[in-house]
Amino acid sequence: VSVPTSRDARAVTVADHSEGQLIARISDRLPARPGWIPVGIGDDAAVVEPERNRLEVLSVDALVEGVHFDRAFTPPAAIGHRALAVNLSDLAAMGATPRLALISLALPRSLSLAEFDDIMESLITLAGRCRIAIAGGNITRIEGPLVIDITVLGTVKRRQVLTRSGARAGDDLYVSGTVGSAAAGLQMLQARARPPATDDAGDRASGEGCINRYLYPEPRLRLGSLLGRNRAAMACMDSSDGLADAVRQLAEASGVGATIEAEAVPLEADARRWFEQRGTDAVRAAITGGDDYELLIAVRPRARGRLTAALRHGGTPLTRIGTCTADRALVLRQDGAGQPLPRGYSHFR
Amino acid sequence: VSVPTSRDARAVTVADHSEGQLIARISDRLPARPGWIPVGIGDDAAVVEPERNRLEVLSVDALVEGVHFDRAFTPPAAIGHRALAVNLSDLAAMGATPRLALISLALPRSLSLAEFDDIMESLITLAGRCRIAIAGGNITRIEGPLVIDITVLGTVKRRQVLTRSGARAGDDLYVSGTVGSAAAGLQMLQARARPPATDDAGDRASGEGCINRYLYPEPRLRLGSLLGRNRAAMACMDSSDGLADAVRQLAEASGVGATIEAEAVPLEADARRWFEQRGTDAVRAAITGGDDYELLIAVRPRARGRLTAALRHGGTPLTRIGTCTADRALVLRQDGAGQPLPRGYSHFR
Repeated sequence: VSVPTSRDARAVTVADHSEGQLIARISDRLPARPGWIPVGIGDDAAVVEPERNRLEVLSVDALVEGVHFDRAFTPPAAIGHRALAVNLSDLAAMGATPRLALISLALPRSLSLAEFDDIMESLITLAGRCRIAIAGGNITRIEGPLVIDITVLGTVKRRQVLTRSGARAGDDLYVSGTVGSAAAGLQMLQARARPPATDDAGDRASGEGCINRYLYPEPRLRLGSLLGRNRAAMACMDSSDGLADAVRQLAEASGVGATIEAEAVPLEADARRWFEQRGTDAVRAAITGGDDYELLIAVRPRARGRLTAALRHGGTPLTRIGTCTADRALVLRQDGAGQPLPRGYSHFR
Repeated sequence: VSVPTSRDARAVTVADHSEGQLIARISDRLPARPGWIPVGIGDDAAVVEPERNRLEVLSVDALVEGVHFDRAFTPPAAIGHRALAVNLSDLAAMGATPRLALISLALPRSLSLAEFDDIMESLITLAGRCRIAIAGGNITRIEGPLVIDITVLGTVKRRQVLTRSGARAGDDLYVSGTVGSAAAGLQMLQARARPPATDDAGDRASGEGCINRYLYPEPRLRLGSLLGRNRAAMACMDSSDGLADAVRQLAEASGVGATIEAEAVPLEADARRWFEQRGTDAVRAAITGGDDYELLIAVRPRARGRLTAALRHGGTPLTRIGTCTADRALVLRQDGAGQPLPRGYSHFR
C-alpha cells in the first residue's frame, strides 16, 4: 500500500481542482455561520444583518506575490496571516471592531494544494482568534503571481471613530510597540535566502523576533478599540508603510507639521543591532521601513492621563516620539539638529 | 510650443505615478461623498452609516487579464465597465439595491495612464448611473496581469432576499433577456484579432450587438429588485458562467432537478447565425457560453400572474425555458429527446 508523502501532496496543485472543490476545502474548515449572516458562502452574495447603533468601517487591501511577499522565504502560513492582518490593522486604526471578511484569491496554477491549504488555515485561524466571520469570497486563476485581496467590515460607535485628521498643533505623537522590527526581519530573511557569506554567518542564529514581526504582524485591534472608547487619541493611523510615512500622512490630513525625536523612537535591540551592523542609521532605517502595523496617534497634552488609563488595560506599550507643530514642516531631530523627515516606504513604485 | 498628442499620453504609464497621485486622479472624478459616508477615500478605511431596516448584501469578484479579458481586443472602457457590472449582477440576483463599491487595483507597470483613466472613467460612469458610491479602495503594482477586484455592498428588505435555494419541483424556470450573445460576441472579437481569413471576412461588419453584450454587460438591477419586491421568484441567480451552469447550481442548491427546452432558449438572431455558421449547435453553444449576466429564476406556476405584473414595469423580457423536477436529473430536451444538460463555462480551469 502506497501512503502519500508530504512530497506527493506538494506535487498536487490547485490547477487539479475546480473552483467549487477549492471553495469546499475552505468551507469545510469554517465554523458554523453566525445567526447574523442568514446567507453565506454558496450563493451569489452574502446576506448580513447590520449591527444596531453602529457605524460600519470598510477596508480593502491586497497582498501581491513579488510586491508584498516573496514565496521563496515567506511560508504559506505567513502569507495567509499577513493578508488578513494588514486589513485588520486598518480597522484597528479607525477604532473599529472587525466583524467579517470577504476573501478574493487569484491563484497561479503552480500553487500546490498544500500551500493553498496552509494559506487558508492560518487565515482562518487568525479570523477565529479575532472573532470575525468569513462571509464570502471569490477564487479565480491567474497567469502570474498569487494575489490575495481581502475586504473587511467592522463596526464602531459614532463618537468613537478615529481618523487621521483630528490632530492639532501641540498634540503629542505616540507610537505603539516597536518600530523597524519587521523591516529588519525582512532583511534577515532576504539575507538567509542568499548564498551564505562569511560576514553575516553570525546573524543567522538570532533575529527570530524580528522575523516573526515581519511574517506574523499582530493587528492592534484591542488598542485601537480602547483608544476609540477612551477618547484620548484625536487622530490615529497605522504604520503599514513605515512610521515616517504615517507621520507625514497624519500631519497632512490634520493640516499640521510634526517633529519626531530620533532618540525617542522605540527600536527592538535585535533590530537596532541588525541595522547598525550594516552601517545604516538605525532610526532612519526603522522609520522608513514598512510592514510594522503599529498605531501612530496624536494626543492633546491634557489627555495624557486618560491615555495612561487606557494603556493600563491595553497591554501594548505606547511611546511618545514627538509633537505636532503649527509650522507645516516635517522634522526629524537627531543629535540636536533638525533634518527633513525622510520619505516612507512605498510598495507601489 | 509642443502640444502632447494622444500617442504621447499613451507612452506615460502608471509606473510614472505614485499610488497617491493615481488615487487623486480617481478622487477628482468622483461626485461629492454622500452624507451617509462620513469618512471616505483618504483614511485607513471608509466609514458608512448603515441603512435602517435593511439587510446588507456583500459580494466580491475579480477580473483578471488573460483569464476574464484580453487587453488585445477589450478596450479599457469595457474593462472598467465589466469589472463593476459583474459585481452588480450578483446583487441583482439577490434582489438587492447596490449602495457602494470598494475598488482594489493591481496595475502592471506597462499600463498606460490613458488606459488607467479610461478604465476608471467608465467604472465611475456605471457607478453613477446605478447611484452607488465608490467608498474606498486600494492600488498596488503587480509584476503580471492587470487585476481589478471589486467588493459591492447593497441592501434589501428581509422578506425580499432572493437566494438560489428556494426552487421546488414543478416551478417554472425563466431567463431574462437573451442567452449566448456575449459568448458569440467574444468569439467575434477573437476572430477579428486573428489575421483575416477569406471564410469569415463577411462577418466583420455584423455582430456589433453581440460584441457590445460581451464588452458592456448590463446588470439586471431593476429586474432583480422588482422580483424581490414582487415575491413571484422563489429562487434566483445570475448566469455569469453560462445558463447551463446557473441551472445546475440553482437546482443543486434547491435540491431539485431541471429540464430545459432547447427550442425555448431565447437567442439573438446574430448570435444564432454566428454559432450555426461555425457548425456548432447554437443552443448548446449559447447555454455553455459565459459572460451573459442574465437572471435565471424559478417561479411557482400559480405565481405566473404576479410575474407578468412585475414584468410590465421591468422592461426586461423573461422567457420560460423549462421546469424544475423532483427527479434530480438535469436534462436538455432537444428535437424531442432528452440529453444530459451540458456543463457550463468555467473561468477557473
